[in-house]
Amino acid sequence: MARVGVVGASGYTGGELLRILATHPDTEITYATSREYAGKPITAIHPHLRGFYSTLKFSNVSLDEMLKKCDILFINTPQGVASELAPKLLEQGMRVIDLSPDFRLKNQQDYRVWYGFEHPRPELLDKAVYGMPELHREEIRNAELVACPGCNSTAALLALIPAVEAKIIELPRIVVDVKVGSSEAGIKPSLGTHHPERANVMRPYEADGHRHVAEVEQELKRLAKEEIHVALVPHAVGSVRGALATAHVWLAQDVDEQQVWRLYAQRYGREPFIRIVRGAPFRYPDPKYVIGSNFADIGFAVEKRIGRAALMAAIDNLMKGAAGQAVQCMNIMLKIDEKAGLNNPPLRPA
Amino acid sequence: MARVGVVGASGYTGGELLRILATHPDTEITYATSREYAGKPITAIHPHLRGFYSTLKFSNVSLDEMLKKCDILFINTPQGVASELAPKLLEQGMRVIDLSPDFRLKNQQDYRVWYGFEHPRPELLDKAVYGMPELHREEIRNAELVACPGCNSTAALLALIPAVEAKIIELPRIVVDVKVGSSEAGIKPSLGTHHPERANVMRPYEADGHRHVAEVEQELKRLAKEEIHVALVPHAVGSVRGALATAHVWLAQDVDEQQVWRLYAQRYGREPFIRIVRGAPFRYPDPKYVIGSNFADIGFAVEKRIGRAALMAAIDNLMKGAAGQAVQCMNIMLKIDEKAGLNNPPLRPA
Amino acid sequence: MARVGVVGASGYTGGELLRILATHPDTEITYATSREYAGKPITAIHPHLRGFYSTLKFSNVSLDEMLKKCDILFINTPQGVASELAPKLLEQGMRVIDLSPDFRLKNQQDYRVWYGFEHPRPELLDKAVYGMPELHREEIRNAELVACPGCNSTAALLALIPAVEAKIIELPRIVVDVKVGSSEAGIKPSLGTHHPERANVMRPYEADGHRHVAEVEQELKRLAKEEIHVALVPHAVGSVRGALATAHVWLAQDVDEQQVWRLYAQRYGREPFIRIVRGAPFRYPDPKYVIGSNFADIGFAVEKRIGRAALMAAIDNLMKGAAGQAVQCMNIMLKIDEKAGLNNPPLRPA
Amino acid sequence: MARVGVVGASGYTGGELLRILATHPDTEITYATSREYAGKPITAIHPHLRGFYSTLKFSNVSLDEMLKKCDILFINTPQGVASELAPKLLEQGMRVIDLSPDFRLKNQQDYRVWYGFEHPRPELLDKAVYGMPELHREEIRNAELVACPGCNSTAALLALIPAVEAKIIELPRIVVDVKVGSSEAGIKPSLGTHHPERANVMRPYEADGHRHVAEVEQELKRLAKEEIHVALVPHAVGSVRGALATAHVWLAQDVDEQQVWRLYAQRYGREPFIRIVRGAPFRYPDPKYVIGSNFADIGFAVEKRIGRAALMAAIDNLMKGAAGQAVQCMNIMLKIDEKAGLNNPPLRPA
Repeated sequence: MARVGVVGASGYTGGELLRILATHPDTEITYATSREYAGKPITAIHPHLRGFYSTLKFSNVSLDEMLKKCDILFINTPQGVASELAPKLLEQGMRVIDLSPDFRLKNQQDYRVWYGFEHPRPELLDKAVYGMPELHREEIRNAELVACPGCNSTAALLALIPAVEAKIIELPRIVVDVKVGSSEAGIKPSLGTHHPERANVMRPYEADGHRHVAEVEQELKRLAKEEIHVALVPHAVGSVRGALATAHVWLAQDVDEQQVWRLYAQRYGREPFIRIVRGAPFRYPDPKYVIGSNFADIGFAVEKRIGRAALMAAIDNLMKGAAGQAVQCMNIMLKIDEKAGLNNPPLRPA
Repeated sequence: MARVGVVGASGYTGGELLRILATHPDTEITYATSREYAGKPITAIHPHLRGFYSTLKFSNVSLDEMLKKCDILFINTPQGVASELAPKLLEQGMRVIDLSPDFRLKNQQDYRVWYGFEHPRPELLDKAVYGMPELHREEIRNAELVACPGCNSTAALLALIPAVEAKIIELPRIVVDVKVGSSEAGIKPSLGTHHPERANVMRPYEADGHRHVAEVEQELKRLAKEEIHVALVPHAVGSVRGALATAHVWLAQDVDEQQVWRLYAQRYGREPFIRIVRGAPFRYPDPKYVIGSNFADIGFAVEKRIGRAALMAAIDNLMKGAAGQAVQCMNIMLKIDEKAGLNNPPLRPA
Repeated sequence: MARVGVVGASGYTGGELLRILATHPDTEITYATSREYAGKPITAIHPHLRGFYSTLKFSNVSLDEMLKKCDILFINTPQGVASELAPKLLEQGMRVIDLSPDFRLKNQQDYRVWYGFEHPRPELLDKAVYGMPELHREEIRNAELVACPGCNSTAALLALIPAVEAKIIELPRIVVDVKVGSSEAGIKPSLGTHHPERANVMRPYEADGHRHVAEVEQELKRLAKEEIHVALVPHAVGSVRGALATAHVWLAQDVDEQQVWRLYAQRYGREPFIRIVRGAPFRYPDPKYVIGSNFADIGFAVEKRIGRAALMAAIDNLMKGAAGQAVQCMNIMLKIDEKAGLNNPPLRPA
Repeated sequence: MARVGVVGASGYTGGELLRILATHPDTEITYATSREYAGKPITAIHPHLRGFYSTLKFSNVSLDEMLKKCDILFINTPQGVASELAPKLLEQGMRVIDLSPDFRLKNQQDYRVWYGFEHPRPELLDKAVYGMPELHREEIRNAELVACPGCNSTAALLALIPAVEAKIIELPRIVVDVKVGSSEAGIKPSLGTHHPERANVMRPYEADGHRHVAEVEQELKRLAKEEIHVALVPHAVGSVRGALATAHVWLAQDVDEQQVWRLYAQRYGREPFIRIVRGAPFRYPDPKYVIGSNFADIGFAVEKRIGRAALMAAIDNLMKGAAGQAVQCMNIMLKIDEKAGLNNPPLRPA
């Protein structure tokens, strides 16, 4: 049994890690930290976990305890925290899975531009592995530091990877329109997430350049080895869970839907959490049908008339978009079954 | 591995049985019937199950095949079907778990009154065991025919059992106000379930006597051995999943909240799927925190000023209110771990 | 044109007053106060009002200005504020419509018990008129101080008034189960109203005695002139707007649905905002069909088997449950058409 | 008072026309047809209209009666009906406002391509005026036949018109991602609109070429007088009402947000139902804040880094996207106040 620690366990991603690990066959949670709830049972803020973890309380463990009590550690803190904490743990040989943006970007300058953030340990950026198994499985296996992608980025990348690799689309004119549920904003209340304001919205945000664009362009450029422009606009919609990326692309080659299908089926054929979607009546991906699971449903539509396509990826933002993908990375790092703890079907209807 | 058949597998309860059994360690599905979808892959109507059951198609199996191919059978059909089908299977020694109302009531006359239904095999009504483990665990163990409770009934009964057994409440003045999600109505579209009409409702229905009252009064009378009146009104609300029963009762004894808590804790202490809820900030049961699980959360409030209490039970209507409870009964019948296949935490937020 | 002031205009009830008065033919808004937003245009927090009130900004007017600039004043502040402010205005002859609980109760002691509040001006409690036109139209006409009912109270009372007046029900055993939308909690964010937590709830709250019980019992006792017990439990459900009161009552007389209908039709026949609901397919009241309007839909079901009935009232909590009823009172006070500004049909579907 | 007839009054757009016209100062409804509900009161299917139109029943009027009993007629029927009915009415001098797609396209061939429809009266296509006042106000004034735009088209066009006219964007690379509520699909139930399936969706549909593209390209080409390609994909989201068009465009000129603002403010400055949205905290258009009204909220974001912009338009799909815009056209045709019957603020929160 691997001993697992969770730093920042009182939010939604923390709760989701605890939920997944509650039935994971090869791990045990040794601590779950929360400054706000230290000393309280984890069910004080995670009522769904009543009956699980009956003896686990939120704690405020010291660095020493962190190092002693676990073999692998999830960091799940606001931007700027992990870049201070992780280096100290790495020096002592801890393996770290960071769910914050602190190690996603390779280029120190990108942190300045996109986050207004002077990265304190830029030398670690190269060491960090971008935690998307569909792109970096082999590097994740032996990584000391994994930087899990954002949820918008995960959906956008999964929709685009095969098309960009095969260069069937115009790379400087990629549009990604993302729809996301309210859980993406985390557990902290605000006017924008207040139920009367958040219910029934179709609300664009950060429409002039969302931060996740930085990592999406970084990873796609790596694949294409040429200039890529991604116009990505997220939209809050009325759901609690789910993220859908619709990549609107202009075709650079004269391909039809069947050819796109073959391309994606080939690229993703052995991926344990990718499902290609085709055929009525559930014709296109919809996050509704992956809720509670680590699956990403991928589909596409081609409009030959004007040489365009829609490439779509649907995920549960807290699972494949956050905690699920993090556990998938952990499984790879621990060299156990990649699906361990993650092999449940989605919930439906939900 | 027990071989399991599902008759009526294309609706929501059927889909939920398939979802649960997909990861059940001790069973395998040998057929899933559907007249409408016979010959089609189960993912044609259950898109969430993509990647599971890759070779399973809906079928129209004959009675002989039913008998040959499985050891235990779920019947999941509209009222009136199981009472014709089950007897033929029982005669051949099949063990049957019926999720329809056909065998819930003990009294043939009650079927006439509440369902306008002349039961074709009244002699089987005594043989059938009402499938609520909290009431009939021992009889379920060796039952040939289990009749699973309705979802409103499950919530109402779980809220009331300890209070009725201990006779701390006025038995002829029990009010149960139920709130339910839209999945309770099944997968068949209608104007009442059309999204624009069903979203945001607070809609009472069958307010002058819902059919589930018959089984609730039957089981409570059995416990109390005296006259009981239950005024039960369900209300459709905006959720997809969940049922909450709020039993509004007048106290027959001068008890306080602490005493009620002890009573319930004692009665339900060893129940694997009952969780007693107390303490802020998630003070009362809410189906929101059992979604996707077989748990029933139970709580209460006492207003001494006027000698009343609210006894509340929250379930996922498709789980503890239908498929989950049916699998719990199956586990008991198979004499395996009662929690097998059911031991996942609820999903939250959802 | 009557000059109208709104004290406390940045919340949902304030916004609703502004929305109604934007098209009211006989009034003009002269100020709208908000400490938090003073100096900002009202559309800073009320984006739906863009294009209306283009010159109106939130202000922090002095008592003198309040008195000079308006003929009638709405107070829309947290509990405890109006009882300090209103007396100063009343002394100078201002007519005040208070939407807070500060003047609803007649008995100073009730404020201690239900609100833990020592009322600073108990001598005004008798002067205040409880602002429900269906009960106090004539007193409202010449009132100097109107205390508008709470939204749960409005729904509960409208469901019960004719039955209590006619004494067809058991008065010491009244149960009222209320369902309410999220807008009832006001515009201030909290964990309980955070969208991921508030969406899809069926959440009981203040189940051991909600404050609105005090005014409901007060008004019903006035009608019945005998002891009345009201067990009222509100439940938050997934909607934004709407409140439904289902009064579960035990019949004291042997009446059928037709007789109940006649009783209600007679009592409410001339009420401009009461609609009696009967007949399929929209058989019972549902707040869904009064959204955005000042209507209260009333209906009932009788179960003769056990001598009980469900008496139901559906309102929009921000309209008939707050701002709409307040404007209805204002119209009566101004001796203009009672429906002025309020005569729009509800929105549907919504 | 103009006498108004509504052909096809039992659906959501029909109900919305009745709702608007219930308080319209210059019109009276003389008949409302429905084959399914003929003979029944309109409240049988429009429960929100209880208390209005107390004597109006759905009818099956003959062509003669249609002509005699009204001065102007709304046709609100499935595709293919109006093209048969309208010509007979026009011959007799009736003025017709068609809400179906039958007269939106100028080119007979486009009906074959996009609708698989052989138009029976292609000679009328030129006579019909596309019913968007922002484009064709003067022609609408004297039109005999107005063809109201689809709701996706209305949102898409309003977002794009000024940018296309000024040619600040790349015309052959326009992407429009639309989000819509469930009421867009009309009142007829189906699996796709069944609440458990439709709630919480983020569901792309007709992703390989939605029919509304035909009219969007037609109108934009008319403005640009050069080739235009529009990639438009609608997505069903969890709301009941609302449509948001996010036009993702690549800039052809080096403009900043301020310049875009000026362009739009100038183009739409005198439009009675266009509101330009800027400034926190409600920074971008969201249909949530136009619900129940005829307003279109327009906003934009420019990302200079890669020379792109998001041009956004939010409408209530049943109002500015259907019935509201139709009444706006009627007001123009009747040469009365363009805002008559439409001058209410949106509902919020909703």
